Amino acid sequence: MEERRIRIVLDAMGGDNAPVSTIEGAVDALKEKDGFELVLVGREEAIKAELAKYDYPKDRIEIRHAEEVIEMCEAPAAAIHNKKDSSIVVGMKMIRKGEADAFVSAGSTGAVLVGGQILVGRLKGVERPPLACLVPTEKGMACMIDCGANVDARPSWLVQFARMGSVYMKDFMKVENPRVGILNIGAEEEKGNSLVKETFPLLKACSDINFIGSVEARDIPGGYADVIVTDAFSGNVALKMYEGTASTLLKVVKGSMMTSLKTKIGALLIKDALKSTMKKYDATAYGGAPLLGLNGLVVKTHGSSKAKEIRISILQCLTFCEERINDKIKDLFVADKA
Amino acid sequence: MEERRIRIVLDAMGGDNAPVSTIEGAVDALKEKDGFELVLVGREEAIKAELAKYDYPKDRIEIRHAEEVIEMCEAPAAAIHNKKDSSIVVGMKMIRKGEADAFVSAGSTGAVLVGGQILVGRLKGVERPPLACLVPTEKGMACMIDCGANVDARPSWLVQFARMGSVYMKDFMKVENPRVGILNIGAEEEKGNSLVKETFPLLKACSDINFIGSVEARDIPGGYADVIVTDAFSGNVALKMYEGTASTLLKVVKGSMMTSLKTKIGALLIKDALKSTMKKYDATAYGGAPLLGLNGLVVKTHGSSKAKEIRISILQCLTFCEERINDKIKDLFVADKA
Repeated sequence: MEERRIRIVLDAMGGDNAPVSTIEGAVDALKEKDGFELVLVGREEAIKAELAKYDYPKDRIEIRHAEEVIEMCEAPAAAIHNKKDSSIVVGMKMIRKGEADAFVSAGSTGAVLVGGQILVGRLKGVERPPLACLVPTEKGMACMIDCGANVDARPSWLVQFARMGSVYMKDFMKVENPRVGILNIGAEEEKGNSLVKETFPLLKACSDINFIGSVEARDIPGGYADVIVTDAFSGNVALKMYEGTASTLLKVVKGSMMTSLKTKIGALLIKDALKSTMKKYDATAYGGAPLLGLNGLVVKTHGSSKAKEIRISILQCLTFCEERINDKIKDLFVADKA
Repeated sequence: MEERRIRIVLDAMGGDNAPVSTIEGAVDALKEKDGFELVLVGREEAIKAELAKYDYPKDRIEIRHAEEVIEMCEAPAAAIHNKKDSSIVVGMKMIRKGEADAFVSAGSTGAVLVGGQILVGRLKGVERPPLACLVPTEKGMACMIDCGANVDARPSWLVQFARMGSVYMKDFMKVENPRVGILNIGAEEEKGNSLVKETFPLLKACSDINFIGSVEARDIPGGYADVIVTDAFSGNVALKMYEGTASTLLKVVKGSMMTSLKTKIGALLIKDALKSTMKKYDATAYGGAPLLGLNGLVVKTHGSSKAKEIRISILQCLTFCEERINDKIKDLFVADKA
């Protein structure tokens, strides 16, 4: 049997800068790497108008018209239900039918999460699909899982998150024997809320992960763990606190460099070094956040994505498919049944 | 009736640097301000040996012997139960009996939390005492409440935390009409886990607070709210993430300033400005974290406290008592019954 090329669906209408940046990113991705083709879903006319700006390999792009767009402000479940001809619904249904391998969107996070569950559907044995976000640390990237999908989680879900996160870090991020920690408010085993206390022994007993115990939020930036298991509420709080603190602190540091001529000269002298250091802390260099455990890959990129982030997210999908990460996740749960 | 002077009990044996730093901080506090006296609880001999190093107002210090010390590693509830002659137990019982107004400890957080509930006891009407921590923001300090005491919280507790936190920020931190937000993972009212969703309408209906809705963790450092209401698990995660990100980032920024002669000169030029900016972000300048809603004030300071932090925490207790904050909290719940 001849295998078809990897097919990645891009929500051409998703995000603050669509379709200008989505199409630019799509063309850039196609030019950068071979071995895959793209399906652009959205308003055909708008997509064609953007594509007209570029030279690109025409045989690797398909346009799939979708008349509607789900807006950021819409209630996700209602939008998925009512806008059957939206780019997210049409694109996700392609994944479900096996017409494509991966779906990328910079559109409504809620709609992507709901659509992933309802339209793409879970792999057999997966209780809930978690959103896996990369957070930069002193030692490279760590994966916070779940960081947005399941707010009131159960212990058994968290164990699955740990296992899926381990596969992701091992096979996508190439971290050997990833250290798995559970997000907690103390290092001791008896610490935590009831969810953490119930989950801890289950993780300890889980034979296919490298569980290292509790991770306090303060140890995350230092790179204490590679996979940080948590419910989506705490995970999202930690992630956003990270972003907020980093951006405020850098603003404050920069501000203090602008207070006098002396400090301005100082700032000039350290500017390049600071910039190149900060580059290591840019998680968007690896793409968006995958929603793991579905019948195909679904990736959510930042709503503010420019062409660069779109390009990287598409190439992230390519690697994800080439490394057959979804098959490996599938195998985890097939083995459970055996 | 003649009122007695404000009496503050210091756990002389609590923290990594006790009793050296605790006694030094105690003496410094007494010298800095009048109008209160101190009770030093702990091993009399050790306390006397430290006191011998200083000149101090002898009529304002009393030593209360306690033979035992609760160590950081001990299980809190068992330690409070078994070590009846420990500095924490002896000190807290003085508060309960009305022999003193406030208790400060840099010792085991768990023991202070458990002891506060069991030995000092809750004010009438208070369901659970929350730990209130200050977090630095661009616009001053904000109060994260609860940041350590009640991990599996209920909606009605969170409403009480909001009201107590408002009194604390208004009367201790002098913030007029403090803006109260609930820690959440999105700005919309339908966002959040079940605890947040159930609490949101209760806060909205609460007439004695200035509720502004949800606060995302990323908006905390910018100073979006003065009181951030949360269960202790999420609150502690947010707080620790803040600390961890700030310390890692400053380390990284400093590191990038040391990469070449050029950047080192740059660093010298901005050093003073950076230092004075960072000073504004030092929450320890205001003291430790009070456990609110008890029959007297209990303050937990960092285990690593030096004399300076001990001194500030003692003076914090003085202000707290002078401003009659505990009476104001008491009034909140007396009014509920009426």
